[in-house]
Amino acid sequence: MEVTVLGSGSAYPGPLRGASAVALRLEHGETWIFDCGEGTQTQLMKSRTKTGKISKIFVSHLHGDHVYGLPGLLCTLSLNCSSAPGQQGQCLEIFGPVGLRLYLRVALRVCSSELMFPFTVHELEPTSDQSPPAGLPDPDLTACSPPPHPQERPGRTLRPDPESDLYPLLQDERVSVSAFRLFHRVPSFGFCVQERDRPGRLRVELLKQLGVKPGPLYGRVKNGLSVRLEDGRVLGAGEGVEPGVRGRRVCVLGDCSGLVGEGGRRACQGADLLVHEATLEDGLREQAEERGHSTPSGAAALARDCAVHTLLLTHFSQRYKPAGGPGGAGSQGGGVTWGGRGRRAGAEETGGTRPAGNRHPRRTGRRLPRLTCSPPKTPPTPS
Amino acid sequence: MEVTVLGSGSAYPGPLRGASAVALRLEHGETWIFDCGEGTQTQLMKSRTKTGKISKIFVSHLHGDHVYGLPGLLCTLSLNCSSAPGQQGQCLEIFGPVGLRLYLRVALRVCSSELMFPFTVHELEPTSDQSPPAGLPDPDLTACSPPPHPQERPGRTLRPDPESDLYPLLQDERVSVSAFRLFHRVPSFGFCVQERDRPGRLRVELLKQLGVKPGPLYGRVKNGLSVRLEDGRVLGAGEGVEPGVRGRRVCVLGDCSGLVGEGGRRACQGADLLVHEATLEDGLREQAEERGHSTPSGAAALARDCAVHTLLLTHFSQRYKPAGGPGGAGSQGGGVTWGGRGRRAGAEETGGTRPAGNRHPRRTGRRLPRLTCSPPKTPPTPS
Repeated sequence: MEVTVLGSGSAYPGPLRGASAVALRLEHGETWIFDCGEGTQTQLMKSRTKTGKISKIFVSHLHGDHVYGLPGLLCTLSLNCSSAPGQQGQCLEIFGPVGLRLYLRVALRVCSSELMFPFTVHELEPTSDQSPPAGLPDPDLTACSPPPHPQERPGRTLRPDPESDLYPLLQDERVSVSAFRLFHRVPSFGFCVQERDRPGRLRVELLKQLGVKPGPLYGRVKNGLSVRLEDGRVLGAGEGVEPGVRGRRVCVLGDCSGLVGEGGRRACQGADLLVHEATLEDGLREQAEERGHSTPSGAAALARDCAVHTLLLTHFSQRYKPAGGPGGAGSQGGGVTWGGRGRRAGAEETGGTRPAGNRHPRRTGRRLPRLTCSPPKTPPTPS
Repeated sequence: MEVTVLGSGSAYPGPLRGASAVALRLEHGETWIFDCGEGTQTQLMKSRTKTGKISKIFVSHLHGDHVYGLPGLLCTLSLNCSSAPGQQGQCLEIFGPVGLRLYLRVALRVCSSELMFPFTVHELEPTSDQSPPAGLPDPDLTACSPPPHPQERPGRTLRPDPESDLYPLLQDERVSVSAFRLFHRVPSFGFCVQERDRPGRLRVELLKQLGVKPGPLYGRVKNGLSVRLEDGRVLGAGEGVEPGVRGRRVCVLGDCSGLVGEGGRRACQGADLLVHEATLEDGLREQAEERGHSTPSGAAALARDCAVHTLLLTHFSQRYKPAGGPGGAGSQGGGVTWGGRGRRAGAEETGGTRPAGNRHPRRTGRRLPRLTCSPPKTPPTPS
């Protein structure tokens, strides 16, 4: 898993900080995008992220600096697709608050944007306590229903599970994703990506030494059961397998001044990485809250409460300039990368404010600077 | 008048060429924007253009790479406005093809974009010969009518004048603007900005020497009439005034493979500057035409036919990299500037493909490179 902050600026895309966008590269190669402010596609071109691997996009809330880059990104993804029949891409899934489908439909249809792949928009229905009343979706607007784009496939309307207070978005054999409610000037959401735990691999060398032959016994060993060997010895439960690998959990929150309900705390508890906004400095906490935003201390308090391992701050007011100036490492929209092969990063990171990494030329573009936290040297213990 | 190419790339905003946008600074200080691809606001921040002076925006056609930057630009312009009552900006006028109002309304309303100034969208109704049938506005879509944005003021629907084949957009004492029809995959337009001719200034020193006193006689002289002096001598018609200043004409065309009707030729005839697309090289003329685009030779043929003084090419396929590489003068989205105080620029320019100018640091951003054609040394002769 690898997280890259493509844009760490609030309000608008500046020359030195892109508008909000985070890329999450998953172990199996897919890349998911969280928020898509104007210019995200250009930031992607500067990064090491492979646009052809983007399969899902999550929009936290419907403010322009989080979504105005989405129609353009879809068009540019389409340019990378082959137009040969049968070569078309899989359905791109997009998740976001109610209203996103209308916006995307009108933007793509008015502009005659021909996409080479199908897409679907799943809408999250907010609850009335996620924003002041003025921020809730306007029924006059959402009642407007232009015809769908030719490549649009029907999407779901998602509501929170009353038991867990989480919106279940998707799950497969590798990963599950849920959303949770945040408070902002308009309803906002956080997303929790949870890898599944993986069972440990068979200790084949040990089994050979003990004379256990491939066959039904291997199945018992793999499942962590004890096994009686031919010579009468017993191989204890779990002794024939490596320790299991605990799945990682990454939570990416939209703009907020706090959580709504219990879903967020549940989702963030023990997360390996929490990506949280910190629009204004601690001294401006009151002003931040008035605008539905957070400060570094507010974000850190949540991280501490939830025993989060790594906190990555982003969405800084454009008044804060990146460290190192125009050519500095923090410029060009953050571009901080977390992850690698290890399970946990080792340090608290502050996206885009800390000098870090090298810049590499890449074709005619420029790479985003990179900050990688080394994986732990010792293998992880199973959970 | 000064023209700055903010984005010279086609299809998408790349790291080295912005998506389509041209800024025109007028003599009286206003700035007008022609097309507004994604990232235009960021390009503006890098340029010397004052965003607070933007008063009109013209959209040539509804392809994403010409319009996806518009909602974000409006939001950022709004951040520059004072919110004090009575301090709100004047009404921003936006011109573009039918469909633009719907797009902007939905984009701004879904995203709860609060603007501090009123705006209006005037829509140009295309004719059915401006594109293949598939490119014409979809009535099912344009029938969709969400409620207007709180800051939206009613706009006009504009049709071509049957006599001149031009769409009259606006005129005041300083300038007039008309639009004309182009052929593209979707209906496209060109815009013609015509400064009014200015009468020459009174030759006050000469009049003093001749003993003419300020008063009604000055009016006659100013109007170019002959005047009989007290001593019986006659000051010939026009002798008491400097030569008049012919108004300049700048034409900015949207994507096209050619003109439709006679309006375009009429508008471009004798223009001081013609900004024309050249998406593909001459060797790919057939491919360009199939996609509704032009090549440099095609653009030059029109410029020659119309006796245009300066041709500025733009909208290059992203396959063509700017001269000088990533840090080169042509990078960062063109940034070629035409103009100054003179009436005519002296050379043909090729936006973004020719090494030129200096780069200056500006606060924490970077200025666009600049190419200025010197004004002629001799004063212009009156028309």
